Amino acid sequence: MPTFDEYVAQNRERFLNELKAFTSQPSVAAQNLGMREMADRVLARLQKLGAQTRLIPVADGFPVVYAEIGSGPKTLLIYDHYDVQPPEPLELWTTPPWEPTIREGKFFARGVADNKGDLLLRIQAVESWLATEGALPLKIKWVIEGEEEIGSPNLGKFVRAQRALFKDADGCLWEFGAKDSHENPMLICGLKGILFIELHARGAKRDLHSGAAPIIENPAWRLVWALSTLKNERDEITIDGYAQTVRPPTALELEAAAHIPFDTALELEKYGLSQFINGVRDFEAVKKLYFTPTVTICGLQSGYTGPGGKTVLPNHAFVKLDFRLVPDQTPELILDLLRRHLDAHGFADIEIQVTEAGEHVARSPLDSAIVRAAQAAARATYRHDAIVYPSAAGSGPMYELCQQLNIPAVSAGCGYPDSRGHAPDENIRVDDYFESITFIRELIRHFARA
Amino acid sequence: MPTFDEYVAQNRERFLNELKAFTSQPSVAAQNLGMREMADRVLARLQKLGAQTRLIPVADGFPVVYAEIGSGPKTLLIYDHYDVQPPEPLELWTTPPWEPTIREGKFFARGVADNKGDLLLRIQAVESWLATEGALPLKIKWVIEGEEEIGSPNLGKFVRAQRALFKDADGCLWEFGAKDSHENPMLICGLKGILFIELHARGAKRDLHSGAAPIIENPAWRLVWALSTLKNERDEITIDGYAQTVRPPTALELEAAAHIPFDTALELEKYGLSQFINGVRDFEAVKKLYFTPTVTICGLQSGYTGPGGKTVLPNHAFVKLDFRLVPDQTPELILDLLRRHLDAHGFADIEIQVTEAGEHVARSPLDSAIVRAAQAAARATYRHDAIVYPSAAGSGPMYELCQQLNIPAVSAGCGYPDSRGHAPDENIRVDDYFESITFIRELIRHFARA
Repeated sequence: MPTFDEYVAQNRERFLNELKAFTSQPSVAAQNLGMREMADRVLARLQKLGAQTRLIPVADGFPVVYAEIGSGPKTLLIYDHYDVQPPEPLELWTTPPWEPTIREGKFFARGVADNKGDLLLRIQAVESWLATEGALPLKIKWVIEGEEEIGSPNLGKFVRAQRALFKDADGCLWEFGAKDSHENPMLICGLKGILFIELHARGAKRDLHSGAAPIIENPAWRLVWALSTLKNERDEITIDGYAQTVRPPTALELEAAAHIPFDTALELEKYGLSQFINGVRDFEAVKKLYFTPTVTICGLQSGYTGPGGKTVLPNHAFVKLDFRLVPDQTPELILDLLRRHLDAHGFADIEIQVTEAGEHVARSPLDSAIVRAAQAAARATYRHDAIVYPSAAGSGPMYELCQQLNIPAVSAGCGYPDSRGHAPDENIRVDDYFESITFIRELIRHFARA
Repeated sequence: MPTFDEYVAQNRERFLNELKAFTSQPSVAAQNLGMREMADRVLARLQKLGAQTRLIPVADGFPVVYAEIGSGPKTLLIYDHYDVQPPEPLELWTTPPWEPTIREGKFFARGVADNKGDLLLRIQAVESWLATEGALPLKIKWVIEGEEEIGSPNLGKFVRAQRALFKDADGCLWEFGAKDSHENPMLICGLKGILFIELHARGAKRDLHSGAAPIIENPAWRLVWALSTLKNERDEITIDGYAQTVRPPTALELEAAAHIPFDTALELEKYGLSQFINGVRDFEAVKKLYFTPTVTICGLQSGYTGPGGKTVLPNHAFVKLDFRLVPDQTPELILDLLRRHLDAHGFADIEIQVTEAGEHVARSPLDSAIVRAAQAAARATYRHDAIVYPSAAGSGPMYELCQQLNIPAVSAGCGYPDSRGHAPDENIRVDDYFESITFIRELIRHFARA
C-alpha cells in the first residue's frame, strides 16, 4: 500500500483534471447559471468517495449538497460552496474564466480560489486517507451550499430545519484560506458581516436630450449627491448614527492581530499603489483591514457608457453598495440607519433595493480545539507557525452555521495573496493545492485526537 | 402640370419610403457605423434631384456631402447632417431603432427627428418645386456633414478651407426645429456651446475583492466626491471661477424670450414629473432653459452592473459629462477651469479626456432677412406666427459655419415636443413632415424676394 504522499503523487494528474472539470462548469448563483449541473458534479464526486450523500432542496433557492463519512468520537463539519462569483468583466481575463489553464505553476479559472479548489481538495484528501491510512478516525460532515456568493439567503433557515444533523459537530473547517505574503498559513476565526444593496434614483419618464438639463432633474446627479453624504474623502462613514454602532476590537483581538505580518511596501507594490487610504501602514493597516467596517461602491451605472459621445439626460441611475460590518453592527440596523439618513438629507426619493441577503458578523473563539488542531496541522505541513486572525476582511455565513449552533470554527485553504478572488484571473498556485491536501490529513489526525 | 400641393400628395408614399430608406440605414459617427453607406445614399438622392454634388473628404473624419442647385440673386445655404446619435439603450425602443415604423400617425426611427427627416424633406421640397413651379428663384447650397453628433470636430477646418463656396451665402437654414406644445412653429437663432468630456479615476492594478476596501482607495468613491464638488443640490455649478464666465441675457434676448410660451403643468405631465429643478415655472423656466449653462452626467460607469450581487472593489470609474455653454463661455475656458478646480480640490489624480470636439456658443441676429423670410413662411404655412428663440437649449456647429463667416442663420424643422431626440422612440408626426415641405416652398419664395 502506498503512503499518503505517494498516493497523492500518483494521482496528481487525475486530481488536477478533476479540478479542471469542476472549474470548467460555470456555477454563478447571481446569474442562475449552471447551478444544478455543478451540484450534481459535487454530489457525484462525494458518492465516488463512498460518502452517504443527500441533495437537500432549498425552497426558492439552490440545493445544499450534504455528505457524511467515517466514524469516531469527534465530528468535523466542513463548510464549502459550489457557487462562484460572476466572471465579468470578461475582457480582463488572460484566458477565459471557464477554461481552466495552468501557467507558470498557477491554475487560473473562476472559482478556483473561492472555493472550488478547497472544496475538491478536501474530498481528495479524504480519498487519499482512505486509500492509504484506512478508516477515518473521526466522522466528517459536509455542508456545501450553492448560495454563498449571493449572501447565503437560505442557509440560516436550512440550519434551523436540519439542526439535528449538526448537534454532534465538535468543530467546523470553514471554506477558504490562504498563505500570506510571507508564506505563513492563515487561520481565520471570524468574518465581517455584510449588507449588499442597490440605490436607485429615477427622473423623467424617459431618457431625454441633454438640452433639457437646465430644468429636468438628473438622477445621476442626485445619486452622486446622495452617495457623497455617506462617506467623505477622509474615509469616514458619515451616515447619521453610524459611528455609534461600531464596537472597537477587544484587547485579545488586538493581541492576536499584533502577530499578523504586513509588509506595507510589498503590499503596495502588489496592488500598484503609492499609498493606502489615509496613508496607513503596518499595524495601522492591519487594524483597519480587519476591524473597521466599510461601504464600497461595487457597481455604478447611468446613461450612455459606450464608445464616443451621447448627449443624453438619463432617467435612471443606480449603485450597488456593499457594507462590510463589524461588531455590533447587523444588516438590519445599517439598513434602517441608511434609510433614515437618506430621508433626513433630502433623498427620500432614492429607493433602496435589498438584492442579496445580509450576513451577520461572526467571531469564533481563538483557542478552541479546532483552532489548536489547525495550528498543529499547519506546523506539521508547512514547518512553521500559522497566524491566527480574529477576523477576515471578507464575509460569509459563519454566523448562521456555526455561531447559531455554538460550533467553533476555523478557516484555512489553498489561496495566496495574489489569488484574485472575485476578480479577473482568479488563480491558485498548484503547489499550494497539494500542500493543502497534506494539511487536511494533518487536521484530521490532530482534531481526532483533540 | 399639378400644383405643388398636388405633386406632394401624389408622391406621398414614395417620399415616406425614401424616409424609411434613409432611417433604416444606421449612421452612427460615434460608433463608426454605416457612415459611408449613408453618405452615398444622401449623395445619390441629391444627384437624382439634379443638383451638382461633391463628396468632400475630411481628413481623419467622415466626408461632407456638398450640393448646389438653382440660380438667382440670393443664395440660401442649408446645413444638415447625415450622422445620428447611438441608438442605445436598445431595450427601451418599442420597435427597433433601424426598423422605421409608422404608428398612430408618428414615424419612429433613430435619426428621423435629428436630422434625417429635415435633411430629406428639404430635398423633396426642392424636387416638388422644380416639378411644379419650374426653375428655382435662388441658388441653394447644401452642406451635409457626418460628424454633428460627435461635436463636428472637422467642420471649422472644412469651412475655412472651403470658404470660397460660402462667400455668396445670404442666409442659412439650420438643421432642426419643431413646433412647441402649443403648435407654434419655432424659429431658432442661436445655439448653446458644448464641451463633452470624460473623467477617469483609477485605483489598484486590477479589480479586487471588496474585503480590501478598508485600505485600498476606490476610484468610484473618488469620482463621486470629485463630481459632488462640481454642482450642488441647489443646481449651482460650483467649479471655481465658473460663475464669472456667464454673461446674462441681453434686454433684446429677454424681450424675445418673453414671447416663448411655456405651459408648466403640460410640460411636467409630458415628462412625468412633479416639478422642475428648483421648482421653476413659466417664464422662469424659459429663462433657465435657454439662457443658463449646465453640466450634465450623460453616462456613469464603474464595477459590476449586471444582475445580482458581486462584491468587487473596482479599479476604474468614469463619467461622461456634457457642459452646455452660454455667452461668454468657450469650451477651452471651461476645460481649463475644470482642470484647475479638480487640482485645487485634491483631485489631481482624476484624468480629463476630451473625447469630442467642443462647440462655441452661436447667436445670430433676431431680425435678419433669413429670420424675416422664415417668419413669413411660417405664417403662410401654419396660419399663425412663429416664435423666435434667441437660442435653443441644444448645441451645434452654427458658430463654425455661420458666425465665423457672418452668415445670418435660422433653424426650423419638422419635430414636435415629444420627438425624443437622442432618446429611445425618436419620432416625428407624419403630418408635420409634409407641412414642413410646404414651409420650405414658402421659405424659398420669401427669401428669394427679401
